[in-house]
Amino acid sequence: MNFEVAPDIDPAKLTYTFGGVEAQAQVKPGTLISTSTLDCFAGRLTKDGAGTPSEQLDFRYLNPQTGPFYVEGAEPGDTLAVHFVSIQPRFDWGVSMMLPFFGALTGTGTTATLNAPLPEQAWFYDFDVENNTVWYQANDSDLTLPLPLDPMHGTVGVAPAGGEARSALAPGDWGGNMDSPEMRAQTTAYFRVNVPGALFSLGDGHARQGEGEVCGVAVETAMNTVFILELIKGGGPAWPLIESDDYLMTTGSVKPLEDAFRIANVEMVNWVSELLEISLMDAYQLVSQTSLSPAANVVDTVYTMVCKVPKKLLGEAALKAFGGTHESLRKRAQEWAASQ
Amino acid sequence: MNFEVAPDIDPAKLTYTFGGVEAQAQVKPGTLISTSTLDCFAGRLTKDGAGTPSEQLDFRYLNPQTGPFYVEGAEPGDTLAVHFVSIQPRFDWGVSMMLPFFGALTGTGTTATLNAPLPEQAWFYDFDVENNTVWYQANDSDLTLPLPLDPMHGTVGVAPAGGEARSALAPGDWGGNMDSPEMRAQTTAYFRVNVPGALFSLGDGHARQGEGEVCGVAVETAMNTVFILELIKGGGPAWPLIESDDYLMTTGSVKPLEDAFRIANVEMVNWVSELLEISLMDAYQLVSQTSLSPAANVVDTVYTMVCKVPKKLLGEAALKAFGGTHESLRKRAQEWAASQ
Amino acid sequence: MNFEVAPDIDPAKLTYTFGGVEAQAQVKPGTLISTSTLDCFAGRLTKDGAGTPSEQLDFRYLNPQTGPFYVEGAEPGDTLAVHFVSIQPRFDWGVSMMLPFFGALTGTGTTATLNAPLPEQAWFYDFDVENNTVWYQANDSDLTLPLPLDPMHGTVGVAPAGGEARSALAPGDWGGNMDSPEMRAQTTAYFRVNVPGALFSLGDGHARQGEGEVCGVAVETAMNTVFILELIKGGGPAWPLIESDDYLMTTGSVKPLEDAFRIANVEMVNWVSELLEISLMDAYQLVSQTSLSPAANVVDTVYTMVCKVPKKLLGEAALKAFGGTHESLRKRAQEWAASQ
Amino acid sequence: MNFEVAPDIDPAKLTYTFGGVEAQAQVKPGTLISTSTLDCFAGRLTKDGAGTPSEQLDFRYLNPQTGPFYVEGAEPGDTLAVHFVSIQPRFDWGVSMMLPFFGALTGTGTTATLNAPLPEQAWFYDFDVENNTVWYQANDSDLTLPLPLDPMHGTVGVAPAGGEARSALAPGDWGGNMDSPEMRAQTTAYFRVNVPGALFSLGDGHARQGEGEVCGVAVETAMNTVFILELIKGGGPAWPLIESDDYLMTTGSVKPLEDAFRIANVEMVNWVSELLEISLMDAYQLVSQTSLSPAANVVDTVYTMVCKVPKKLLGEAALKAFGGTHESLRKRAQEWAASQ
Repeated sequence: MNFEVAPDIDPAKLTYTFGGVEAQAQVKPGTLISTSTLDCFAGRLTKDGAGTPSEQLDFRYLNPQTGPFYVEGAEPGDTLAVHFVSIQPRFDWGVSMMLPFFGALTGTGTTATLNAPLPEQAWFYDFDVENNTVWYQANDSDLTLPLPLDPMHGTVGVAPAGGEARSALAPGDWGGNMDSPEMRAQTTAYFRVNVPGALFSLGDGHARQGEGEVCGVAVETAMNTVFILELIKGGGPAWPLIESDDYLMTTGSVKPLEDAFRIANVEMVNWVSELLEISLMDAYQLVSQTSLSPAANVVDTVYTMVCKVPKKLLGEAALKAFGGTHESLRKRAQEWAASQ
Repeated sequence: MNFEVAPDIDPAKLTYTFGGVEAQAQVKPGTLISTSTLDCFAGRLTKDGAGTPSEQLDFRYLNPQTGPFYVEGAEPGDTLAVHFVSIQPRFDWGVSMMLPFFGALTGTGTTATLNAPLPEQAWFYDFDVENNTVWYQANDSDLTLPLPLDPMHGTVGVAPAGGEARSALAPGDWGGNMDSPEMRAQTTAYFRVNVPGALFSLGDGHARQGEGEVCGVAVETAMNTVFILELIKGGGPAWPLIESDDYLMTTGSVKPLEDAFRIANVEMVNWVSELLEISLMDAYQLVSQTSLSPAANVVDTVYTMVCKVPKKLLGEAALKAFGGTHESLRKRAQEWAASQ
Repeated sequence: MNFEVAPDIDPAKLTYTFGGVEAQAQVKPGTLISTSTLDCFAGRLTKDGAGTPSEQLDFRYLNPQTGPFYVEGAEPGDTLAVHFVSIQPRFDWGVSMMLPFFGALTGTGTTATLNAPLPEQAWFYDFDVENNTVWYQANDSDLTLPLPLDPMHGTVGVAPAGGEARSALAPGDWGGNMDSPEMRAQTTAYFRVNVPGALFSLGDGHARQGEGEVCGVAVETAMNTVFILELIKGGGPAWPLIESDDYLMTTGSVKPLEDAFRIANVEMVNWVSELLEISLMDAYQLVSQTSLSPAANVVDTVYTMVCKVPKKLLGEAALKAFGGTHESLRKRAQEWAASQ
Repeated sequence: MNFEVAPDIDPAKLTYTFGGVEAQAQVKPGTLISTSTLDCFAGRLTKDGAGTPSEQLDFRYLNPQTGPFYVEGAEPGDTLAVHFVSIQPRFDWGVSMMLPFFGALTGTGTTATLNAPLPEQAWFYDFDVENNTVWYQANDSDLTLPLPLDPMHGTVGVAPAGGEARSALAPGDWGGNMDSPEMRAQTTAYFRVNVPGALFSLGDGHARQGEGEVCGVAVETAMNTVFILELIKGGGPAWPLIESDDYLMTTGSVKPLEDAFRIANVEMVNWVSELLEISLMDAYQLVSQTSLSPAANVVDTVYTMVCKVPKKLLGEAALKAFGGTHESLRKRAQEWAASQ
């Protein structure tokens, strides 16, 4: 197995789009990469910062990406498998906030209304990593509550097709800002390669988030992340897929939310049909009775739905997705961990 | 505690709307009711039936309701608490099917397209209740798979407000055909009373279903169901709420799906704000980091989303919803079970 | 031709639902009816009224309906043709207002947000019927502007199918609160009959409105209206159709708005295919290049889109819709007018 | 006035994105440009072509753009005014077609279904420019119908903000593939400049189209187009605006369609409030009673709605939009035409 540690983040090299930017590093398929990411605010929002939260921010520079990584040999139509070995907060705190005209429960730039915005506010969370805890602290009263630490990346993807360059705030068939809590350690995500080298990047770490990310901002934090980039020739999925030890997962990112649901479910029906070698209608029926359907985000430029089917309900066939890539990468991750 | 066994179902007395029909029985608040329901097809679709599935059906008579029950003393603005003691299939089989122009992955009467319909087909499931199993059997190949039995009611609700009578195929703020797998035994659902007596009814039992009920039809089956109808004066919620031992749940039923999500989340933010006595913005933040957001149905006349927050994350305050009604009804159900 | 003048409105007899109410009058097919309607606020909102606008209103009693009329011989599946001979304001003023959490550019009960409502306000319009003018008067400055008088009914329809009773605030396949400015004098609307007698009613007169009725309230006013109820055996359309001298029009009422657009367009493709005796795909192509697609309302319980095709583009065939009913009713209306 | 004729189209220089491509020409503000565009299929689909329509196409190269044009002095935040002097078909025929899984009345890649696609088919239209006529010819029967020629550009816009490059198939706040029939000769479109030089391009000529472009393909044709690019310092609108002699128009491009409607209406309310110097709520009221709300497209990657208010209803103030730019450009266009 290859092993590579990416150089320290050079703030001048952060990127803000998927596509349209040059590779920051070139790796061989199978490389394990240990790197870090800035939080979605590029570190600008701090407890001691001067001014309101949005005065501290620069809205042109949100969701800074680490990468893109050029994967040698990756060609359009191939599959890039990304296995997250570990995702850990770099600091002992994170932050969420209410941005004006952003979030699911307010008028926004696209669900345009004439109402005044909700009041701007930040919430700071202390982390107790040893006890796996993120501390919620109410702003307007004394309430504190311990929440489970559950680190993940909101933004993970490759360069889009058709010569497009897309903001790191947008999710789509290239991945991007899907903001799904499923994108956690010990899962494998699969992306279709659209351009030579795939140009993978990641960012927007969350110490935890609810499904749908309803206020639009999770517990945002910088991350130290270890992942493996593996290349599978051909078989690139139409939309990003995720596999954990327990679930096969598909995603769809579009508006309205029912269309995101439709995409994720069509992808799952196709996947189950192929893996179990059953007819499309038999797969449609099976998915109908077995799927979980959580929202990922209902706040970004488009919305993301996830369709999850428990692998144990599908029998042995569910283990052979992408030729058993997930199981293989899990083993390699464990070997690496043991070697540290 | 009152205890009442409703008389056997009289097929001539089945109802097909919420509102617009006369009470079939009158009960005192606190009554435990043991009754049964027909499946959504009113028992017309059988393995040995002649003709195609839709030829066997009468589309005017879907989702037959047991009820309505008139609850003495219930007045508009009150809260009807419905605790499901047990929900058990009456027979050893259930059925799902593909109805033409129905389901999330096809053009329908409202997502109107010019495409030909998907082929009509039925799937029959054998139940092994002892082993808690529902057997999936592919139609086009030999595959069989054991799925967990997880019985629930798709259709549960009260008469709507404003003099409306709504088809038992429709979900809304009166409940109705929400098709949420959360409506299982050992949960308590809360509805706002809109008319004197509340006029509660239920039907559409599912041996199990996926979240979103993507093909539009679950594992449909007749049920023997025991439930308690309790009345809480005042405090009627704007939209149906559900409480289990582990979760507070809100629902929203409307199109598009993001609006159903919005409703469920606004309701949860309000509920958490009240229970924890924190500001609305603090509750918005807390819900954003803790909620689960599964689809219930994305196939009915309107769609239903659920917002779930784990009670253990909210601390002691989460136990006092509706004055501890859920815990109290759980105890009464257990006492009753012990007495059988 | 039959001719009947309905008795004066009896305020005790106003109805607030389509379906679920008894007929107020019985008429023979072909009857010309001269009646009147209250405004959507049942006359409660006046320039000199005490309290804020919403304090003057009773939200349980909006969109009072004149009717329903029982049409002799009308049976489920038939077509009820309603020809509007004239629609004229009863008074010399009308009113619009901003209702809290209502309208397209604010959070509402279904596009639920946590924002504060927009400020409540009423606008009163003076009518100059002789000059065909409705005077807009700004509230916060001196601006006045003459707008064309263009009277219509927001709420027109029959009893729905399936035993439903629907609020007069809701549009759907029975018609109801479609709020389309196309429902003006000299047009013919076609509805599928769902119950014996059809049970037609109308209300919610507007002196004029924009397409989409964006703030949710038009220039509301009581009307004196003359219309003919004609019965066509069979051929009941799936969704309400409208015909004027110049246009064939279809409607679709559902959310999201693209689904309303889809319904209206599928109905138009089918209609054009039948009238011109061309294939469905040829009709789809022809409609694609010739249709106008205005919004009717984007504010009610569901939204309504209209699809309009100029009759002159379709040739002679466009005149034979429903056997030339529109042309025939136009003539009868003119004869009646000449006789007055 | 400057006057410039762009060189003949060099097929090697066509562009397929807004943003992400280099300027093909540099012009001074005020320049009149006479150029030409290819049809959306880049001329690949012909009556005599071999193979099915989609075999003739290369889906990577749809909506080829003429441009981009770099406008000297244009800086982010400025307004680019584009006045269409004339738009005329280059050839005497055009073509429409049914693309598999594209259009509003079929399942698509985003409204994902399991239905089979509609049959693929092309329709060829003969033009009789002298008589202003486009001839519809049914494929499955002998029907022919003359339709009015009404030439326009489906794709008109500037480079987007945030470093994005967007496919010429996508509409958005930079303009792009809005597919609005309002983008015809003698109108002025206003765009916010997002990058130095604005980088304006255009393409996708339609000999005519229905509102909503329901099958997804208009009467596609190459165009000879004359337009003026004018620069207004500052004042860049959030979304593209259009002005004709008779109407002020705003656009919104997003899904679901009601959100596109919301955007267009919020922009119109703001515009009317500024021009008439009335309060936002007074403008909301005025727009509510005066606006027309046609769909532009309900088929592209996102949908576009237009909000139109007749200038004559707004009084003199409506003529001073952007300092009277439209009237001034109309005069310059007439002077140029007189000089030819």
